[in-house]
Amino acid sequence: MSIFDTAVWHDGRVRMMDQRLLPDQEVYLEYESAAAVADGIRDMVVRGAPAIGCAAAYGFAVEAKRLAADGNPSDWRAALEPGIKILRECRPTAVNLMWAIDRMWGVVDAAQPGDDLPAKLLAEAHAIRDEDIDSCKTMGRNGAAQLPQFPDRPTVVMTHCNAGALATGGYGTALGVIRAAVEAGQNIQVIANETRPYLQGARLTAWELIEDNVDTTLVTDNMAGHLMSRGEVDAVVVGTDRVAANGDVANKIGTYTLAVLAKRHNIPFFVAGPLSTIDRNCPDGAHIPIEERDAEEVTHFRGQRTAALKVKVRNPAFDVTPAELVTALVTEKGVVTAPTREKIAKLFES
Amino acid sequence: MSIFDTAVWHDGRVRMMDQRLLPDQEVYLEYESAAAVADGIRDMVVRGAPAIGCAAAYGFAVEAKRLAADGNPSDWRAALEPGIKILRECRPTAVNLMWAIDRMWGVVDAAQPGDDLPAKLLAEAHAIRDEDIDSCKTMGRNGAAQLPQFPDRPTVVMTHCNAGALATGGYGTALGVIRAAVEAGQNIQVIANETRPYLQGARLTAWELIEDNVDTTLVTDNMAGHLMSRGEVDAVVVGTDRVAANGDVANKIGTYTLAVLAKRHNIPFFVAGPLSTIDRNCPDGAHIPIEERDAEEVTHFRGQRTAALKVKVRNPAFDVTPAELVTALVTEKGVVTAPTREKIAKLFES
Repeated sequence: MSIFDTAVWHDGRVRMMDQRLLPDQEVYLEYESAAAVADGIRDMVVRGAPAIGCAAAYGFAVEAKRLAADGNPSDWRAALEPGIKILRECRPTAVNLMWAIDRMWGVVDAAQPGDDLPAKLLAEAHAIRDEDIDSCKTMGRNGAAQLPQFPDRPTVVMTHCNAGALATGGYGTALGVIRAAVEAGQNIQVIANETRPYLQGARLTAWELIEDNVDTTLVTDNMAGHLMSRGEVDAVVVGTDRVAANGDVANKIGTYTLAVLAKRHNIPFFVAGPLSTIDRNCPDGAHIPIEERDAEEVTHFRGQRTAALKVKVRNPAFDVTPAELVTALVTEKGVVTAPTREKIAKLFES
Repeated sequence: MSIFDTAVWHDGRVRMMDQRLLPDQEVYLEYESAAAVADGIRDMVVRGAPAIGCAAAYGFAVEAKRLAADGNPSDWRAALEPGIKILRECRPTAVNLMWAIDRMWGVVDAAQPGDDLPAKLLAEAHAIRDEDIDSCKTMGRNGAAQLPQFPDRPTVVMTHCNAGALATGGYGTALGVIRAAVEAGQNIQVIANETRPYLQGARLTAWELIEDNVDTTLVTDNMAGHLMSRGEVDAVVVGTDRVAANGDVANKIGTYTLAVLAKRHNIPFFVAGPLSTIDRNCPDGAHIPIEERDAEEVTHFRGQRTAALKVKVRNPAFDVTPAELVTALVTEKGVVTAPTREKIAKLFES
């Protein structure tokens, strides 16, 4: 199934597919500094928590390569810090960004005199991406086993935003669960919420699932409740940008609403994410910063204004779903049913 | 405050503001037959249950005028029936369409030999519109009195779709409540959900409230739950396309989701509609037909495709909110708290 160049190393540069142009055009952009990669992430050339982590790791590596072009710096940490600070702060909610950068700093700190640090950093970035793909595949199998199955009809899975190949190293978290279920021969139909304001569902999820021949139906976000009330949804599977230590989940705006609706209709609500998305330093959802983005994402479509002039706008990009609404957290280390602080801590023990 | 020519009689024709072009252009279209008015309603030149009722009444009147141009028909009912049937069937969910047409047929049936029937029908259409405006104003005052008020801050009212001047004869049901509250000196801020796929909130509600200098903030539909979870919404007020005899409410897709969210957050959920929107022949919400509209409303914006190719689409235009989620039904005859079949029947007794 599809593996896309969401964020890869290509010919000495960071190469990212410009997801803003999907599904109309497949255009690749290349970056040669951490600050440039930060711009790409902020402008949503690449999005999705694990993919942002991979992009940031490669951004770190390309920054080291750039610095080494004039001869190795005498103090690598000092030389890297300005660019990496920009990279670290380019988006606030997805914790994988900070996680990947911390891991890259670990390589800097462990370096010995005489090491080829740019090569070591690139190797670490490759490892982060490879591990992400592996994690997604394992997570996918773990999640697929949780989906209800019916002898006489397909299982209808609703998903929100894009937690797919395009949001990760290349296989997907929520869509990894769907891919793994399809690969295992389960009879799956997907309902993709379009996901306003950025239409990741309509543009990205629908596109990558159709590329993989998965039966996919698009709806607007406000139709989810109606379909659930008619018994037309069997499970909800979403990704996550950050899981707090207590199991509260930050994800794309609209996720909380789906969780409330799923609870009312006794529909299982699964959150799929790698351990790198769990922020053990964040006690609960109230401590997760929620990014507010530009008003134009809400008032305009591709430069064309769609809303009345002079209207004020709110544009929170994420919301928080309390752990009590999460049926299970699906990770590469296993499935945590009815997540709690204690159960989540256990994931990190072995 | 604003009265718009949503559907009026102008120079012997039915004149309607083309709401598809708002907020960019104010264009008026004129119609000379029932079938033409039906096309306008189906294509959403005019929308909103009470406005559709007014348009249908004028469409009935203009059909009679058209027929009389060749001399009065010997059998008015037979002559009118083909055109009025098209008009009656142009949209299935809003009951005001059928209600207005039934009322116009009543004039036909009561006519005496020698009556100027076209003049009588036009008078009845004018009465329907005038009564709608009066009803909305009374309803508005009734609803405004229900809104919570705070000594030290504004009351934040969320609304969905457009149940405003543009959806009625000219004052609004849900927005009538907001207008009446503002006119009474209450401190009101409005959150308008954009209302996909047709963006009635972004295009129409925001536009008409800003015209009236009401403090209005636009959000995407999927942000409502987040704002409620942060305590940023004090009440929800929506209109309705049909209320069943037991108090179940059909309204624009997404309304049910708001009601579920409001319930979770103990936020009062008000439905404003005139008695003409209550369908006493419809026992409950399961009997209300839900219109499914064209896929292109979801996949395209003004002719530009926004969704992946080949994706399937669902486009239900309405959903049903069960009576148990309705805090109160606001009508021109009074406010029905926690509506039931018995309480609704009482509205019609005096």
